[in-house]
Amino acid sequence: MNKFIRVDMTTLKVTTEEVPAQYAGLGGRALTSNFVAAEVKPTCHALGKNNKLIFAPGLLSGTSAPNSGRLSVGAKSPLTGTIKESNAGGSFSQKMAKMGIKAFTIEGMPADDKFYVIKIDMNGVTIEEAPAEILGGCGNYEAIKILSEKYGAKVGIGLAGPAGENRLPSANISFKDPEGNIRSAGRGGLGAVLGSKKVKAIVIDDNGAPGVPVADPEKFKAASKIFAKAMLDHPVAGQGLAAYGTNVLVNILNEAGGLPAKNFTAGRIDYNDNISGETLNATITERGGDGKVSHGCHAGCIIRCSQWYPDKDGKYITSGFEYETIWGLGADAGIQSLDDIAYCDREMDDIGVDSIETAVAVATAMEGGLIPYGDGKAALEAIKEIRKPTPLGRILGSGTAVVGKVCGLFRTPVVKDQGIPAYDPRPIKGIGLTYATSTMGADHTAGYCISGNILKVGADIDPLKKDGQIEYSRAMQIGTASVDSTGMCLFVYFGVADNPGGYQALIDMINAQYGINLTATDVDKLGESVLKVERAFNKAAGFTNAHDRLPEFFEYEPCPPHNAVWDFTPEEIDEVYAFENEGACNC
Amino acid sequence: MNKFIRVDMTTLKVTTEEVPAQYAGLGGRALTSNFVAAEVKPTCHALGKNNKLIFAPGLLSGTSAPNSGRLSVGAKSPLTGTIKESNAGGSFSQKMAKMGIKAFTIEGMPADDKFYVIKIDMNGVTIEEAPAEILGGCGNYEAIKILSEKYGAKVGIGLAGPAGENRLPSANISFKDPEGNIRSAGRGGLGAVLGSKKVKAIVIDDNGAPGVPVADPEKFKAASKIFAKAMLDHPVAGQGLAAYGTNVLVNILNEAGGLPAKNFTAGRIDYNDNISGETLNATITERGGDGKVSHGCHAGCIIRCSQWYPDKDGKYITSGFEYETIWGLGADAGIQSLDDIAYCDREMDDIGVDSIETAVAVATAMEGGLIPYGDGKAALEAIKEIRKPTPLGRILGSGTAVVGKVCGLFRTPVVKDQGIPAYDPRPIKGIGLTYATSTMGADHTAGYCISGNILKVGADIDPLKKDGQIEYSRAMQIGTASVDSTGMCLFVYFGVADNPGGYQALIDMINAQYGINLTATDVDKLGESVLKVERAFNKAAGFTNAHDRLPEFFEYEPCPPHNAVWDFTPEEIDEVYAFENEGACNC
Repeated sequence: MNKFIRVDMTTLKVTTEEVPAQYAGLGGRALTSNFVAAEVKPTCHALGKNNKLIFAPGLLSGTSAPNSGRLSVGAKSPLTGTIKESNAGGSFSQKMAKMGIKAFTIEGMPADDKFYVIKIDMNGVTIEEAPAEILGGCGNYEAIKILSEKYGAKVGIGLAGPAGENRLPSANISFKDPEGNIRSAGRGGLGAVLGSKKVKAIVIDDNGAPGVPVADPEKFKAASKIFAKAMLDHPVAGQGLAAYGTNVLVNILNEAGGLPAKNFTAGRIDYNDNISGETLNATITERGGDGKVSHGCHAGCIIRCSQWYPDKDGKYITSGFEYETIWGLGADAGIQSLDDIAYCDREMDDIGVDSIETAVAVATAMEGGLIPYGDGKAALEAIKEIRKPTPLGRILGSGTAVVGKVCGLFRTPVVKDQGIPAYDPRPIKGIGLTYATSTMGADHTAGYCISGNILKVGADIDPLKKDGQIEYSRAMQIGTASVDSTGMCLFVYFGVADNPGGYQALIDMINAQYGINLTATDVDKLGESVLKVERAFNKAAGFTNAHDRLPEFFEYEPCPPHNAVWDFTPEEIDEVYAFENEGACNC
Repeated sequence: MNKFIRVDMTTLKVTTEEVPAQYAGLGGRALTSNFVAAEVKPTCHALGKNNKLIFAPGLLSGTSAPNSGRLSVGAKSPLTGTIKESNAGGSFSQKMAKMGIKAFTIEGMPADDKFYVIKIDMNGVTIEEAPAEILGGCGNYEAIKILSEKYGAKVGIGLAGPAGENRLPSANISFKDPEGNIRSAGRGGLGAVLGSKKVKAIVIDDNGAPGVPVADPEKFKAASKIFAKAMLDHPVAGQGLAAYGTNVLVNILNEAGGLPAKNFTAGRIDYNDNISGETLNATITERGGDGKVSHGCHAGCIIRCSQWYPDKDGKYITSGFEYETIWGLGADAGIQSLDDIAYCDREMDDIGVDSIETAVAVATAMEGGLIPYGDGKAALEAIKEIRKPTPLGRILGSGTAVVGKVCGLFRTPVVKDQGIPAYDPRPIKGIGLTYATSTMGADHTAGYCISGNILKVGADIDPLKKDGQIEYSRAMQIGTASVDSTGMCLFVYFGVADNPGGYQALIDMINAQYGINLTATDVDKLGESVLKVERAFNKAAGFTNAHDRLPEFFEYEPCPPHNAVWDFTPEEIDEVYAFENEGACNC
């Protein structure tokens, strides 16, 4: 991967250059975050001409390494104002890597109001006016179909939905998956950045691509085999996720008393059977038709946590039907019908909004009186308004923080203006530290402490106690920054956390591909360096430790059934990133 | 003034104590800001139970000193997240002072959903349920009438309008003026704080009050006379404001090319005659009836910049019809009819939203396509929705920053989420420094550099050049913090800026009242100390120098006719508050 492509939307000119020295050896999040930190003014407006958007495959993307097909997208976030990396499945990352493209950036902003399609193939990059039929409310499912017809069934596509066209802060970037359905770089509003640059879609055609060179194919193959076995042997990575999807977590979190219910007023619901992973599996199995219990979001996935959820007649409704979405609408917003939630999920994917942010926004809007509590039909109608967008649609599409603001609420579950996802930080204190301190705003995937707190994978820490949580959240955030740089799905963590051989195999694959000799310590150092770069950007953008705090109500509202409150002191929270100041002046 | 009254809305209990030692000698903004800094957790939610609201007369309030009847209100702002002092006319301040009440605070929050009226008289403080007829959409004009009928025609009233009840971030606190009309502590959403504490209104009855003791009445009287003469002799304070109101500025700023037009895309309009102060005066004079060209917002005002603006039949529409409101709707939102703007002003007063924030929000919403540009009737209909509030009403009532967010705009004129008022910072660079660095967010009254940049009162600085502006904005912010602590209207500055005797008379009045010997240096030190306390609060709340920046588009969009851009470097801007770090470590 030696090509670094820049598209300047101000001039509509494309530059293809060798990878700049400062970005050599980086991939995925390490690359996107170093790029944004180096080239984007931290105090710029995220929707202005000085923000830059970057797409980068991970270090292992495009190889035969299992689960290595994630794409990292980076920019300054219009939702949080922080640096942002959001990653997604689909085929985009693997195609870029096979074409030798290390990164692809979109910079500047056109003076006119036209939307464009950027086409990337082995002949280069072209910028065309977007067909009118995919603009102004056309959903992502339809737009992908039209673009696939126009540019070829096998092309990869990344696009801004109606929400991104309207630059709404929770707009995601949607990616076509192998079957033409939708995968999302969900969090942080990067679809609004794409829309601000007047790019409706990026189409990538890897026909004729040389593929990814591997320095030591034998060593790579051997390591890959060990790595795959580590995945498949693990009860979570190899079995639980394939059977029940990520939604396996509804019953687990409910049992643990950490499933946030009714806008974070409790940690348990009594209708969990209606929306659980077990019910999801049984419903798909029973309905048949288009339904698939297990399915991968990109070629080469062996975890296969996705699924196709069909309606009563067996017709496809949605895929990638994730726990966090089902939790948000099901437990937090009180919608007790999996079908109602599925139609909302489809609508959010079709409009192109982050389904976590939007689900939390809906639950918060219910507390604010904008939508009747627990009403799945009303929630769907409200979500549909984001497409137009009506004033209510604009509010919901702007995310949880804006909903809280316009409703005058103090019970607004956000950190750095990003909605808190599906794990209550009071009874599961490790994840609370990640929410508070993550460089991305509240984000469970930034350091998934649920693993050691609840699933007991990789660690065994009492979720209700503070002991050991600071070190654990720190280690998980560092490890995640490394994994996010490889193109690997985050879930590979489950397979390697308790399996030193599996972890070594992951490092061995990188070494074999590039002909280098990274150690586990090097990988940790990479993660640390990524976090330091991100923190430095955020600091220059105006963020301080005072922003590394959970909403105040968690400190004084106990969460039943454990009646836990958030009791980390500011000083304790700040220890998570103590490594950032090593060697700095402490006067 | 020796009584410090605290109302705890959690327990509905009232405590009257001696003024705590730490607050002795302070008044107005000096008192409110020291109180908020000492007693409010900087990272608390502004609408949560841990915010506190404080009302404090100035040091001279309640005396016969001209123009000393302003009331300071303080809290953490739900609009900006900063500390906030907002001051207003009306009779509230003078009544408090005459009753010996140094400050009155509202703390905590009731568990139930009832609204209350707090009644203060010489027998003490009582808390009663608010009458249903003044709740749920009842306008401020009507509510003041009902409360005056219930509690007596002469009582003072401070209240939350429909916007405050709904805790919208640009809700103001409205105060009854001597004629039963409305004066507002406008900026920063303090009405939402009042609403969050479930206080609909505060009624103050000074019947039987002892009045304000003056240590040296002769000296006071002599100083007061000199001070009054300084005011009346000045062409701005004594003549311009009385004839044309603050709206005298439309033609002045338009001529200077610093009247922001069409959401800050230009600095001049060609229909200035439609909305100027001269036209305002002529219209009021011609229509007669209830119209008054000149009128004071509180007893003892000798500047009399307010007016009553009547309709074509001579019937009262609105009063306190300020330049900033007329600019916002007239130039920034392009509404060319003074009558249309007057009806909007009345509606904003009646709903209880800051007319600056809302006018700027309307103009921004026009850029975002929510309201047709320049359409006064459509603007009025949109503003009316804040009362209900509909989703559009909630958006507008949440202020300019939220409008920009939901419309996906980068041209959002705010600093620290507060709308930039009526003076373009590109061709008038001094005011830009105040907007950027003020502890309150964008606020012209925090350091009114228009004075020396445009009016040439107190200084003569080229508005288009950077020379001298840093020192000037600093001095004006320090001086303002002092004046805001006296209970004096900010406009007294015009009278004393070039008149050392007038300034000394102001200090002499304070000395005569309290039997002390402040010098001009002491007064400056007071201002500095207030700003330092406010900055320290903001810093602990998470604000850094990176927030002391104007919106990025001012840096690259020239403002015609001068085609000036905002060209202060970050380092230069940070010099404004250099005094804050004196003696601190610079490593």
